[in-house]
Amino acid sequence: MILYPEAILKLISSFSTLPGIGRKTAERLALHLLHAPEHEAAALAADIIELKTSVRICTICFALSDQEKCRICADPSRNHGVICVVENPTDMAAIEKSKAFSGSYHVLGGALSPIDGIGPDDIRLAELFGRADPDRIKEIIIATRTNVEGEATASYIQDRLKNRHITLTRIASGVPMGGDLQYVDRLTMQKAMEKRYGF
Amino acid sequence: MILYPEAILKLISSFSTLPGIGRKTAERLALHLLHAPEHEAAALAADIIELKTSVRICTICFALSDQEKCRICADPSRNHGVICVVENPTDMAAIEKSKAFSGSYHVLGGALSPIDGIGPDDIRLAELFGRADPDRIKEIIIATRTNVEGEATASYIQDRLKNRHITLTRIASGVPMGGDLQYVDRLTMQKAMEKRYGF
Repeated sequence: MILYPEAILKLISSFSTLPGIGRKTAERLALHLLHAPEHEAAALAADIIELKTSVRICTICFALSDQEKCRICADPSRNHGVICVVENPTDMAAIEKSKAFSGSYHVLGGALSPIDGIGPDDIRLAELFGRADPDRIKEIIIATRTNVEGEATASYIQDRLKNRHITLTRIASGVPMGGDLQYVDRLTMQKAMEKRYGF
Repeated sequence: MILYPEAILKLISSFSTLPGIGRKTAERLALHLLHAPEHEAAALAADIIELKTSVRICTICFALSDQEKCRICADPSRNHGVICVVENPTDMAAIEKSKAFSGSYHVLGGALSPIDGIGPDDIRLAELFGRADPDRIKEIIIATRTNVEGEATASYIQDRLKNRHITLTRIASGVPMGGDLQYVDRLTMQKAMEKRYGF
């Protein structure tokens, strides 16, 4: 059984290591690149290399950055008196996409998870507590995920910072906007009822 | 809205140009590579470059190859008296995967399609007719697809080679093995009935 030349098989294998890319998809991608213009394939290869060399982590908020200070931390138009705490850069991107927040961030790099052996020293909690200076920070919004680990992390932060005279808030949970109520899971619906508010 | 550093955004754009890769998937792939070991990302980039430089086309059968002659055409254990005609390398790979064929191939590089302006001179039909020497070739199996273009191409080849004293065959169509009959489409079922055979 001789399917393809070595170079194609190698690229199929490499693509297959990526998350969510199975053998079939990897084959399709490799054959697409084979027929794509030279510059398109070259650009993809160059972008992969550049990614690994140019991306670093902001020394203040630990977001992905191309400078020592990320573009949000360096932006004087953002409100640096408010910190939104997220687990990782994907969650941060989701909040930025919503355009609902104009403060700064703190990227923990995970959540507390005793089962996986992730304790307070394994994520950037000390750095958050170091930034939580009441003279400069008015509010910390805890936007960790709403699963067990995220809730535990939120509780831990709340407990450690409750005496510092900084307003601590948690992002709201509830039914999604524009969604059909019949598809909302039980826990979310309970939360939505519990956190209901007056008009 | 500042989502990611420039290098990540560029790689997301590059991944998005690939077929079947949307913005979300591209974002997931880029962030995966960012956290993947250096050598894994480097290997992927190198494989993409190598693909474009090392893959060529077999001068005999027009399959993808890394030599002047592909590994099947160069293999003395294959039966070079039988040619299986396919539309493209993906179809050839599907037949090789089945391990049901041990002859050689002829890759047309498409199928006749007057609507798309693809005539006999636009695919490698002349090269197939050139190879169809009755002294050396005993059988030509036409394995073009079973859609309109593939059937038209099969008819055209059959018509052009019918007087050459070479056995011309067409791959069988019918219900898939192990499949539930209720999901078989009407045309396939008609073909399965029409081509039924005795025990």
